Amino acid sequence: MRWIRFSINDKIQFGLLDENDQVLPVRGDPFGHHEKTGERLTFSDVTLEVPIIPTTFYAAGMNYADHVVAVAKRTGTDAKLPESADIGYRANNALLAHGRDVLVPEDAGPRIHYEAELVVVIGQKAKHIEQRDVPSVILGYTIGNDVSERDWQKSDRTFWRGKNTDTFKPMGPWIDTQFNPGGAKTTIRLNGAVQHEFDTEAMIFGISHFISRMSRYLTLWPGDVVWMGTDGTSPNLQHGDLVDISISGLGSLTNRIVRLGATTP
Amino acid sequence: MRWIRFSINDKIQFGLLDENDQVLPVRGDPFGHHEKTGERLTFSDVTLEVPIIPTTFYAAGMNYADHVVAVAKRTGTDAKLPESADIGYRANNALLAHGRDVLVPEDAGPRIHYEAELVVVIGQKAKHIEQRDVPSVILGYTIGNDVSERDWQKSDRTFWRGKNTDTFKPMGPWIDTQFNPGGAKTTIRLNGAVQHEFDTEAMIFGISHFISRMSRYLTLWPGDVVWMGTDGTSPNLQHGDLVDISISGLGSLTNRIVRLGATTP
Repeated sequence: MRWIRFSINDKIQFGLLDENDQVLPVRGDPFGHHEKTGERLTFSDVTLEVPIIPTTFYAAGMNYADHVVAVAKRTGTDAKLPESADIGYRANNALLAHGRDVLVPEDAGPRIHYEAELVVVIGQKAKHIEQRDVPSVILGYTIGNDVSERDWQKSDRTFWRGKNTDTFKPMGPWIDTQFNPGGAKTTIRLNGAVQHEFDTEAMIFGISHFISRMSRYLTLWPGDVVWMGTDGTSPNLQHGDLVDISISGLGSLTNRIVRLGATTP
Repeated sequence: MRWIRFSINDKIQFGLLDENDQVLPVRGDPFGHHEKTGERLTFSDVTLEVPIIPTTFYAAGMNYADHVVAVAKRTGTDAKLPESADIGYRANNALLAHGRDVLVPEDAGPRIHYEAELVVVIGQKAKHIEQRDVPSVILGYTIGNDVSERDWQKSDRTFWRGKNTDTFKPMGPWIDTQFNPGGAKTTIRLNGAVQHEFDTEAMIFGISHFISRMSRYLTLWPGDVVWMGTDGTSPNLQHGDLVDISISGLGSLTNRIVRLGATTP
C-alpha cells in the first residue's frame, strides 16, 4: 500500500495510491482512524506534498562504511567507523516534496552534495522495544535526500545551514507499507546518468538495532521519521542538475537543484 | 496575556490565564483564529501541558560568557566564545510540562545538570526578517530547563541521550505575550535555595540577532521555539531534587529530578 499526502484546491490531505495511478483520498491519517472518501483522482492531477511532517526528525548520519571513508578523505582525517548507533537530527523547515526545486542560497559555496537515504516512518508510539519487535512499530518506508552544503557544514558549530537550510531535505514521494529493505538497491542518477549504486541494507547499524536503541531513552511517535544514512559521495551539484534517487521496490525521489541568483541554464 | 495549554478530561486545549488564576478556555490556538468558549476554570483544577509542541525546536547552546567558561573548565579545554550565532536543535520527545518529574534513566551517570533558559515562541511565519522586525514575529516567551547528562554529552556523537532523553526538556508554565526581557533576572533555586542568578539579557548574541540570522536561511513557523542558552553551571542533581527556574516578570518552571530505580528519599 502506498500512502501519499497531497494538496488539491489548497487543501492538504492523505490518500492511497493504487497500482493504476489512481488516488483514493481518505479522511483521517495513516496513523489513526481513516476511511476512504469515495472520491477518485488521477495521480498526475494532484500536487504531492511531503508524505509526513514528523514530530521529531531523526537521521543516522554516518551509517555506511564507504561514506565514512569518503568523508575522511574530504576532511583530511582518518576514517573511523562509528562505535555506537547515536542518532542525529534534522529540521522540519527544510523538508521538500518530490518534484520541487532545492533552492540553494546565493551565498552558498560550490560544494552542494546529495545524500541518498532510506527513510523509516514510525507507525506507533513505542518505547523500550526489542529489536525483534521493531518491524511492528514501522508503518512503512520512503526516500530522503540529505542535501548538504559542505563549507557551512565545516564552518558552523551546528548543521543549521549546512544541512537544514529551507528545501535541503527532499523526502518522498510516498510511504510504502509493503517495502522490504532486504535485497534493495539504492541508485542515484544525475541528469539521467547513473552516478552511484549501493546495497540499501549494507548499513553499519541496521534499522532494528538503531530503533531499539533509540527507544531505550526516547519515545518514538507516530509519524516520526528516521533517515538511515547514505553511502559513497557526491559530485558538486550545479545549477539545473536533476537528482533522482531510486530504491528498488520503493520508488524514486526527484528534485532539481536551483542556485538562487544563477542564470537559467 | 498568558496562554496555557492544558488537559481536562483527557482533552488538550489552549486557554488564557487571567490575573485571578482563572482559566478561560479557547477554541483554536494562539497562532490562528481562536475564541473564548465562555467557560471558566480554576488554574489549580487543570493539568498543565507543555505550552506548545513546536514544528522545529531550536536551541542557541553557548550564548552566555560565564557558561562558556564553565564548560571549558569542565571539559579541560580553552574557553572560546562562539564567533557566530549558529542555532542548534533539541527534540520534541523530550518536552515535559511544568510540575512533572524529570525521569533519569538508571544507566545515567552522576552529572545530571540543569540549564535555565529564556524561550522565545514564534507567532508568525517568517523568512528574511530584519533585526528591527523580529519583535513583530514573536508571540511571547516561556521558560526552559535544558537538563543534560554530561557523560553521554561527552561520549556520544550527538546530543540524542545527553540532551534529548524523554523528560529532559521541561518547558513552561505558560507563554507570556507581554514579557520584556529587558532588565529581567533569571534565578535558579535548588530545593528552595537560590543557586545562581543572572541577567536574562546578557547574551552573547541577542534574540533579534539570532532570529534575523536564522531567517536568512530558514522559515520560522508559528509555534517554533528558540531556547536562548544559559549562564553559569549546575551542581550534580540528586534524586528528589526540586529545580525551580524563575525569570522575573515571566514566571517559574518547577520540576523534580527522579532517578529511576533509586530509593525514594
